[in-house]
Amino acid sequence: MTTFGPLFVPTPFRAAVADDAWLVAMLEVERALVNALSLAGVIPPHSAVAVAERCVPSLYDVAALSEAGRASGNPVEPLVRALREEVGGDDARYAHYGATSQDVLDSAAMIVARSTTGLLDVELAAAAAECARLAEEHRATPMAARTLLQQAVPTTFGLKAAGWLVALLDARARVARVELPAQLGGAAGTLAPLGADGPKVLALFAAELELAEPLLPWHTNRAPVAELAGALDAAAGVAAKIGLDVVLLAQTEVGEVSERDGGVSSTMPQKRNPVRATLARACARGVHAEASVLTGGDYELERAAGAWQAEWGALSSALALAGGAVAAIRECLEGLQVHSDRMRMNMTDGLLAERRVFAEREGVEADDDPTTYLGSADAFVERALERFGEST
Amino acid sequence: MTTFGPLFVPTPFRAAVADDAWLVAMLEVERALVNALSLAGVIPPHSAVAVAERCVPSLYDVAALSEAGRASGNPVEPLVRALREEVGGDDARYAHYGATSQDVLDSAAMIVARSTTGLLDVELAAAAAECARLAEEHRATPMAARTLLQQAVPTTFGLKAAGWLVALLDARARVARVELPAQLGGAAGTLAPLGADGPKVLALFAAELELAEPLLPWHTNRAPVAELAGALDAAAGVAAKIGLDVVLLAQTEVGEVSERDGGVSSTMPQKRNPVRATLARACARGVHAEASVLTGGDYELERAAGAWQAEWGALSSALALAGGAVAAIRECLEGLQVHSDRMRMNMTDGLLAERRVFAEREGVEADDDPTTYLGSADAFVERALERFGEST
Amino acid sequence: MTTFGPLFVPTPFRAAVADDAWLVAMLEVERALVNALSLAGVIPPHSAVAVAERCVPSLYDVAALSEAGRASGNPVEPLVRALREEVGGDDARYAHYGATSQDVLDSAAMIVARSTTGLLDVELAAAAAECARLAEEHRATPMAARTLLQQAVPTTFGLKAAGWLVALLDARARVARVELPAQLGGAAGTLAPLGADGPKVLALFAAELELAEPLLPWHTNRAPVAELAGALDAAAGVAAKIGLDVVLLAQTEVGEVSERDGGVSSTMPQKRNPVRATLARACARGVHAEASVLTGGDYELERAAGAWQAEWGALSSALALAGGAVAAIRECLEGLQVHSDRMRMNMTDGLLAERRVFAEREGVEADDDPTTYLGSADAFVERALERFGEST
Amino acid sequence: MTTFGPLFVPTPFRAAVADDAWLVAMLEVERALVNALSLAGVIPPHSAVAVAERCVPSLYDVAALSEAGRASGNPVEPLVRALREEVGGDDARYAHYGATSQDVLDSAAMIVARSTTGLLDVELAAAAAECARLAEEHRATPMAARTLLQQAVPTTFGLKAAGWLVALLDARARVARVELPAQLGGAAGTLAPLGADGPKVLALFAAELELAEPLLPWHTNRAPVAELAGALDAAAGVAAKIGLDVVLLAQTEVGEVSERDGGVSSTMPQKRNPVRATLARACARGVHAEASVLTGGDYELERAAGAWQAEWGALSSALALAGGAVAAIRECLEGLQVHSDRMRMNMTDGLLAERRVFAEREGVEADDDPTTYLGSADAFVERALERFGEST
Repeated sequence: MTTFGPLFVPTPFRAAVADDAWLVAMLEVERALVNALSLAGVIPPHSAVAVAERCVPSLYDVAALSEAGRASGNPVEPLVRALREEVGGDDARYAHYGATSQDVLDSAAMIVARSTTGLLDVELAAAAAECARLAEEHRATPMAARTLLQQAVPTTFGLKAAGWLVALLDARARVARVELPAQLGGAAGTLAPLGADGPKVLALFAAELELAEPLLPWHTNRAPVAELAGALDAAAGVAAKIGLDVVLLAQTEVGEVSERDGGVSSTMPQKRNPVRATLARACARGVHAEASVLTGGDYELERAAGAWQAEWGALSSALALAGGAVAAIRECLEGLQVHSDRMRMNMTDGLLAERRVFAEREGVEADDDPTTYLGSADAFVERALERFGEST
Repeated sequence: MTTFGPLFVPTPFRAAVADDAWLVAMLEVERALVNALSLAGVIPPHSAVAVAERCVPSLYDVAALSEAGRASGNPVEPLVRALREEVGGDDARYAHYGATSQDVLDSAAMIVARSTTGLLDVELAAAAAECARLAEEHRATPMAARTLLQQAVPTTFGLKAAGWLVALLDARARVARVELPAQLGGAAGTLAPLGADGPKVLALFAAELELAEPLLPWHTNRAPVAELAGALDAAAGVAAKIGLDVVLLAQTEVGEVSERDGGVSSTMPQKRNPVRATLARACARGVHAEASVLTGGDYELERAAGAWQAEWGALSSALALAGGAVAAIRECLEGLQVHSDRMRMNMTDGLLAERRVFAEREGVEADDDPTTYLGSADAFVERALERFGEST
Repeated sequence: MTTFGPLFVPTPFRAAVADDAWLVAMLEVERALVNALSLAGVIPPHSAVAVAERCVPSLYDVAALSEAGRASGNPVEPLVRALREEVGGDDARYAHYGATSQDVLDSAAMIVARSTTGLLDVELAAAAAECARLAEEHRATPMAARTLLQQAVPTTFGLKAAGWLVALLDARARVARVELPAQLGGAAGTLAPLGADGPKVLALFAAELELAEPLLPWHTNRAPVAELAGALDAAAGVAAKIGLDVVLLAQTEVGEVSERDGGVSSTMPQKRNPVRATLARACARGVHAEASVLTGGDYELERAAGAWQAEWGALSSALALAGGAVAAIRECLEGLQVHSDRMRMNMTDGLLAERRVFAEREGVEADDDPTTYLGSADAFVERALERFGEST
Repeated sequence: MTTFGPLFVPTPFRAAVADDAWLVAMLEVERALVNALSLAGVIPPHSAVAVAERCVPSLYDVAALSEAGRASGNPVEPLVRALREEVGGDDARYAHYGATSQDVLDSAAMIVARSTTGLLDVELAAAAAECARLAEEHRATPMAARTLLQQAVPTTFGLKAAGWLVALLDARARVARVELPAQLGGAAGTLAPLGADGPKVLALFAAELELAEPLLPWHTNRAPVAELAGALDAAAGVAAKIGLDVVLLAQTEVGEVSERDGGVSSTMPQKRNPVRATLARACARGVHAEASVLTGGDYELERAAGAWQAEWGALSSALALAGGAVAAIRECLEGLQVHSDRMRMNMTDGLLAERRVFAEREGVEADDDPTTYLGSADAFVERALERFGEST
């Protein structure tokens, strides 16, 4: 979803997944590789230095590498050729030593994912903080709960915000739980040129990149990618859920919340569109689709012919759009105007029907005030706020 | 994917998600509810007993309840009416006390999920054990590794099996990690009729059902369902990956593995179709689709009008088909015939090309035996087997 | 989505895709095959008669065939064996002559699809007729149009119903446009045992089944299945769109429509849930997921190992759930109560804002009656009704 | 899938969906609108000229408009403001007269779709021509047909190419069949400011843009978008199917085809990766996912809050990636090297098993030459070539 990109995705997220960010990450991987090989005694230290010194993004043109990569099916093959030319001499042969293109791209993908999920974590935390604030402020703000969009029984806006809060905390924890492993398997997962030193180099390499050390190369075991995709989908999904609730509560006929600086219309000056909630929902649809590219693919034997190559763009989009979704909802929540008078006004007599049924069964008289039939709403808000306290 | 069900899904899995299993689970929930209410002192113990005694599946007809449920949008409303009629008298009013239909269906869904993922865990463990056996037996069985389906460098069949093993262990751990919470929120998440006793009853109720206690009712925070769906998709996906490899290795022109009792053809007696691998792949496509119903839905305000109702069938199918996928691959692995002679015979001279490049760079002579250029294959097998040892 | 099947899918649709319906269709295909072969002079007429006489569903047990089909990966192989046993003698060898399992299953799928889309067409037509009635009745019923769920400008309920109508007519036309071809290619698309008579037999066979004659066998060119899936998704999607609008208009705070016999709640007697609209939305989610199984699959070489086998259940579910979605919305529309007073009452002053902007620009005075700013609403209703007239 | 864009998508396709192309299209829409309004006598001709003269892309910055569009939820609102500023004076008020943002974006989307599907049509035709050439050249080239990837019976490479050909022609016809309608409904589908002139202006506007005239505004009836998405998915899917077959036939152990200039590997000089086939498969996965964004969305009442905004990027990606998929397969086919010796060599004795079964049944002797058991292969090739002849 790059069309009109800045409309959907804030600059930091777009930058974090841009082709340039991938180039930086790929060079970081090539640098870490020679360092690890040098530390393991596989290649001479001075060669590692010589290679590492040329792992400088400004020396390479990612668009040209992409174009050139059409011949080999990925941009790493031309990058390695360019890097070796830059290094020159005997040292050149140690660049990319023992690695395969997929090692570089997969590790780079994890680096890109790490930086973007870092940004996402900040957004999730900020959105959660807004929900906690709203839950606290509106613990005693009664409103109608709606099931199948029909008024059901009373609730509080605090409990609604607490529900959003818990969902955001769940999503944040899920994103944080995703392990991002380094990839290093060589041509086909045996790290053949390294002999039995493979695991040692793999450990050093992962440490160098500060990525998790995988048990085995995962060229065609895409569990890490799938878990990441699921977590991004979940995060964007929570943003979309909050967005949906905001859109519904902001309806003209409901009017219980509105976005500060709601979207303007050139011809209909009365309108205050819930724009950020809408953008969050739009972004989340994109994440959901990209996540389906990152799961369910056919990864043949030792390296896939298609499903893997489809991951790069899908991952970038999923990361950026997840950021777009959560950032939009964070902005939405920051400026959310809660109209508690309207909430109270909207409450219909029907909200007491359940209470009356129970009262009649018990043979007692039912209280007529809908704002007093709130059950454990406050207790649940308390639990949510406690968990929020522990999360920060 | 129920058409020709027994072809795809073994009987225990079909039984575990059948409508009757849902009925059993729903009644178990109603029973647990009155017990929890009684323990909490909310309802009289004798009323709880009276209700619990009628929570007997044979008293109800799930097809009739489904038909009747068309009027209210779910089968719980008619079930509760039937249950109350069965109980009769004053006690009847305590049946379903404080709960909403979604409490019953969501908790029942988690019970159905628990029993089915229990079966799935057994299948995953058995499939993993087969892979561990194959990895052990074939640590020293050289074969060609293939990337983009082209012979790349040598590997061992042991490492291939170890890769499957790790993927299965990952998937098994992911399924085991899914938390299955009880659901109890009442009409709209406040547990209104219980006053401030909600959390207490919720805790007792969850304990009664041996399900996790949620922080808040999760009527429209579907994280539990989404995590479950992701885990099922991952498990089926691993089965499909193994199935894909088997299909490819079993090709007439490759012939490196075959299924014992491969599928017969009435007109082509020579054929030995990799039927179980094929069924695993078919089932996994179904799981992937059902998982998309279980994620990405719009859950409006306190109760959804559509996305929630779509979950029941999707969850049943996802559970059953995940079972079908893993069971098929377990059977496939149990009877997998490994043709190590053919593996060796298939190895082309090209597999040594990488070694020669490295040798030439180093100015040394390359060994001409492809079976000796195996790098860290064995070390990786060792790691996988160790992890398998820890998992059992 | 078979859990609580009768809740979602009316009996005729469930029957039309049941395993028994597939068995009937498969036997119809075997019968048509021998008839076509006999007409083409390939097999003796008396053998064709002998086989056709045993193509009687009651002779076979589809559950047992499914179970037995696990060995060969499909139910046709055991069916053919059973059929040949039934026929016995020399004639038996002409049963299934020249065909492959996929010929039988694909042709049967098209027969199942034909009968189910026939039912679907009736439902679509009936739903369209309801919309036409509503459009006609409410040509002059003003209401607020809502964009991003904010009141925008006035419209009429007639125009809204006309929009639904056109969408239903589009969907109906799309379903009707889908070509359902017979399948006959033999083991691998060459109809080898028939020599050069293949096309002739194919034409006779297709005519016998009253299915379209394909240019070539389409074992791994799944355009027919994909087009059908897209049409079913579109039909269910229109039902879901109408359902969404009904759910929104039926909100307590909007109250502009309600379902007659709206869903009851045992504890909240005031509620009138838009149950049918909700069921339509739920069913449509299922169709959308099943459609994704029916598109985007990998169909290897002459016959697929997984993607094809996944189609049977997905197609059955997609057909049944599309029926469920449209039937639910037809029922919803039949009983839709339109509250025109509430529509008028809900119209806010903001609906005139656009008119005032235009009036101010023109330097004229704006009319203050929202019900007179309806532009071409009526002209569009007229167009929709004309097209409806042509469609019937 | 924009990461490493040039690797996947040829320049013309990227240009055709770039933000700049959308800007050009949006301005074309604004220009057509004033022309139509002028022709209809709604606005003064000189005002139309004044506006049209400022509909010049170089006057606007699409990145800035996207950024600014964050406030209103789309880029049209700031574009209209900028356009009016450019026009200035009294004429400015006639810019965008009577239209809503969605009118401009939807019509622009159809313009972007038209130009991109135009490019796609050329690629599909070229790919089909390559298949026709291969089918013609290899009518008599025998090879093994494979079902479930097992050798089944003989076929010809000509028939395989004919199967690809028919699939491409089907897909091309489907893309060509998609109607791309103009959109003009005003704020909520009534074209309120135009009074009863709406249909007249709509007809002129559509003619001006050379887009189809819709019966009604289709703001929330997304049939056109869904049909387009389905057609793109189908086209990319055929490319992926051919890619899959090429990847399988190009396997080291099969070696029946290879890509000229197959992908190189820096470390494994022997490899000839089927790169274009792989890229086609990767692109198709992306199209499939984007298509799911373009179908199945919730479009609320008169304008959607999320599902619509998600379309722009998804449509651009689907169009570009469909182009990438088909272009890659066209290149693949252009340079496809067919190794007929290897095809013959690979044919195993098993291919004759079916023939022998039939011979035995008939009590005749079976011919021992697999290359003579080709049934109607040639007749089917003939049919495919005839249809190709008609298509050009």
